[in-house]
Amino acid sequence: MDNLELMKEIARPSPTKIVLLVIDGLGGLPNLETGRAELEAANTPNLDELAAAGICGMADPIAPGITPGSGPGHLALFGYDPLSCLIGRGVLEAAGIDIKLEPGDVAARGNFCTIDEKGLVTDRRAGRISNEKCTELCQLFDGISIDGVRILVYPVREHRFVAVFRGEKLVADVTESDPSQTGVVPLEVNSLIPTAKRLADIANQFINRAGMVLAEHHPANMVLLRGFSKQPDLPTMSEIYKLKPLAIAVYPMYRGLARLVGMEIARTGTTLEDEFATLKQNYDDYDFFFLHIKWTDSAGEDGDFDRKVQILEQIDAALPGLVNLEPDVLVVTGDHSTPAVLGGHSWHPVPVLLYSKYCRPDAVEKFSETAFLSGGLGRLHATQIMPLAMANALKLTKFGA
Amino acid sequence: MDNLELMKEIARPSPTKIVLLVIDGLGGLPNLETGRAELEAANTPNLDELAAAGICGMADPIAPGITPGSGPGHLALFGYDPLSCLIGRGVLEAAGIDIKLEPGDVAARGNFCTIDEKGLVTDRRAGRISNEKCTELCQLFDGISIDGVRILVYPVREHRFVAVFRGEKLVADVTESDPSQTGVVPLEVNSLIPTAKRLADIANQFINRAGMVLAEHHPANMVLLRGFSKQPDLPTMSEIYKLKPLAIAVYPMYRGLARLVGMEIARTGTTLEDEFATLKQNYDDYDFFFLHIKWTDSAGEDGDFDRKVQILEQIDAALPGLVNLEPDVLVVTGDHSTPAVLGGHSWHPVPVLLYSKYCRPDAVEKFSETAFLSGGLGRLHATQIMPLAMANALKLTKFGA
Repeated sequence: MDNLELMKEIARPSPTKIVLLVIDGLGGLPNLETGRAELEAANTPNLDELAAAGICGMADPIAPGITPGSGPGHLALFGYDPLSCLIGRGVLEAAGIDIKLEPGDVAARGNFCTIDEKGLVTDRRAGRISNEKCTELCQLFDGISIDGVRILVYPVREHRFVAVFRGEKLVADVTESDPSQTGVVPLEVNSLIPTAKRLADIANQFINRAGMVLAEHHPANMVLLRGFSKQPDLPTMSEIYKLKPLAIAVYPMYRGLARLVGMEIARTGTTLEDEFATLKQNYDDYDFFFLHIKWTDSAGEDGDFDRKVQILEQIDAALPGLVNLEPDVLVVTGDHSTPAVLGGHSWHPVPVLLYSKYCRPDAVEKFSETAFLSGGLGRLHATQIMPLAMANALKLTKFGA
Repeated sequence: MDNLELMKEIARPSPTKIVLLVIDGLGGLPNLETGRAELEAANTPNLDELAAAGICGMADPIAPGITPGSGPGHLALFGYDPLSCLIGRGVLEAAGIDIKLEPGDVAARGNFCTIDEKGLVTDRRAGRISNEKCTELCQLFDGISIDGVRILVYPVREHRFVAVFRGEKLVADVTESDPSQTGVVPLEVNSLIPTAKRLADIANQFINRAGMVLAEHHPANMVLLRGFSKQPDLPTMSEIYKLKPLAIAVYPMYRGLARLVGMEIARTGTTLEDEFATLKQNYDDYDFFFLHIKWTDSAGEDGDFDRKVQILEQIDAALPGLVNLEPDVLVVTGDHSTPAVLGGHSWHPVPVLLYSKYCRPDAVEKFSETAFLSGGLGRLHATQIMPLAMANALKLTKFGA
C-alpha cells in the first residue's frame, strides 16, 4: 500500500483547517563572507516564535543529493511520489495559464528567441519582450494546422508561450529544440521511441513555419520548444485526503501544479500582501490552503543573497496575519532549496516547520537550517509532510485494529 | 529482499538473550498546564540510567503521521511490515483467548449490547456486564449452526466475545454490524466482494437469532459484530530469527499477537510484578522475551495523565529486577504513543531505548521524547528495532562477502 492509498483509506473529512505555506527555494547556504545562510541573516521574529511553538525538521523533496524542479518539489509537498508522478514542463506551463488540456494533447513550453542571419541563437529569450508583444506574436499562429494536427499557441509572459499539439496518435517522447546555449542553431526535435516520430515531424514543421511567420519580428524571430508532455492522470487531493483545497499563487506554474491535483485556484493580486489577504477572504470556505510565495526563489536564482534575506523578512512581517487566523495546522516549508550562493535550485534538504496544538514541540527556537537539524521531525521525506499535517488536524483514523 | 528475508538469511542461533519490554502507548504529549509530557513528569531514575548507558531514538511504527492500532504497532516491533501483514480484529481477539483457529475460519469480535423496544442501540457495551455473565450468555449459543456453518461463541471479558464462523467457502470481506454510535439500529452486514455474500447472509441470520436468544437478558439483549477476518499466514519468529521466543502479557490481545508470530505464551498473573516474576522464572528456557505492559495505554486512553505518570514510575521501580538478569540486549519501547492529552492512540513517534554491551552509547541521559531526539538511533522505523536487537545480541552474520 503506498502513501496515497493509505491516506485514501484513513482520511476523514473534518472542519479543521490546514495551511501549507510554501516559500519557494526556502533553504539556503552560508554566505561566503559572513558564514551565515539567508535564514540566519534574516531577522524573522515571527517565524522564530512559530519554530519555538512547533515541531521542526529537514525534508528531502526527492532524495538526498537530488535537486528537484518545481514540479517534483511541489508534488512531493502535496504527498505525491515525485519519482512516479512525472509532469512535463509543457503541461505545467499550460495548466498555469488556465488551458484545459484534452486527453491526448501534447503541450510544449516555448520561448520566443533571437537568431542571427546564420540561424544561430543569439538570445534564448528574445530580449524578454513585453507581455503585450508576446500575445501579439502568438496571434500570428491562429488557426495553424499541420498534417491534421492543430497547434494552439498561447502567450504566458514575456518571451514564454505554450504550444499545444492537438490531434490523434501523438506520443510525447521527443527531444527538445532548445539548445540551452547561444551561438548554435536550434536543435532538431527527435523521437525517443518509434511511435513518437509523428510528433517530432510535426514539431519540426511547426518550428520551420514559425521561422517564416516571425521573420520580420526581430528580436523575436524564432521559437524554441521544450518539455513536450501529456497530462498525467493523478488522483485529486479531494479524493485522497477528503479535503476542499484552495491554491493561492501569483505565478502561473504553481497554480497549474495545484490544478493538476484538483485544487481550486483563488484569484489573487501580485504581491505577498495580496496573497495573505486572499487567504483571509477565502478562509471560511475551504479546509486546505496552499499559499505559494515565489520571490525567495527568484532572488536565489539571481544569486541575490540580500534580496532573498529581505523577502524572508517581508514574509515574516506578514506572518501574523496568517497565524491570527488560527489554522489548526500551519506548515511552513519550501519546495526545494535555492541558495543564493549557487544561483539555482539545489539538493539541500528544506526546512519544514509544523505547528498544531498536538505537534509535540521540540527544543528548536530559531527558524534556520542549522537549528532545524535538532528538530523533532528529524530528517523526513517531503511526501510525509501531508500525512503529518492531516494527522495533526485530526483528519486521519488509525490504521489497523 | 525484504527485512524478514534478510533476517532469515543472516540470523544464527546463539545463547545470548534479548528482552523486548513493550510499554503500551509509551509516547505522550505535553500536559497543557505544565508543558511537560508524561515521561518528563514521571520520576524514572532507573530508566534514565538505562538511557544513559544505552542508545536511544524515536521510532515510527508505520510512517510519520499514521496512528497505529495495536496489531500493526506490535507486528512492526516484531519486525513484520505492518502495511503488508494485515491482521483483523476478530483474529486478534480469538488468538488472545487461546482459540486455535482452523484454516478457513472467520473470526469476528463481538459486543453484547443493549437495544430498546424500537431496536435502537442504547448501550454498545451492555453496561459492561461481568465476566461471569458474559460466559453464561455465550453458552446460550452452544451448538448453533446456520446453513452448514457452525458458529462458536467464546467469552472474552465483560461485554466482549468472539464469534468464529467455521464452514466451507467463507470469505471475510464483509462490513461490520456495529454502528459505532447509539440511538441507531445495528447495521446490516454486507459483502464487500461477491464471494463474501455467503458469510454476510450467515452473519445476518446469526445476529437475528442472537436477538431472539438474548431477548430476556436485558441489558445484554443484542450483539454487535466487527472485524471479520481470517488468520494471516505469517512466518514465525523462530523461522526468521532462529529464536525461541516467550511472550508475557496480561491482556489477551497481546498474547494473541505473539501467538500469531509463533511465540510461546507464558502463564502469568495480573500485575506488573507478576509479569516481571514470570520473566525471571522462565529466563533460562528462552532466548527472546516479549514483555507487554498494558496499563500505560489504558491510562492514556482514559485521558488520565497522572495515572499514566504513576504507572511509568511503577515500571521504573520494577525495572532493576529485569536489568539484574543481565540480558545481552534490553529494548524498552512502545507499540505506539497514547498521549493522555489526546485520550487515544496517536501518530507521534515512540521512544526506543536499546541497551547492550555493544550498543555505542549516545549522550542521552533522560528517558523522554525530547531527550531521545538527539539519540544515536535517530528517527527509525519500528521494523528496524528487531534487526538492531539481533545485531547487538551478536545473532547476525555479516551480509555479503
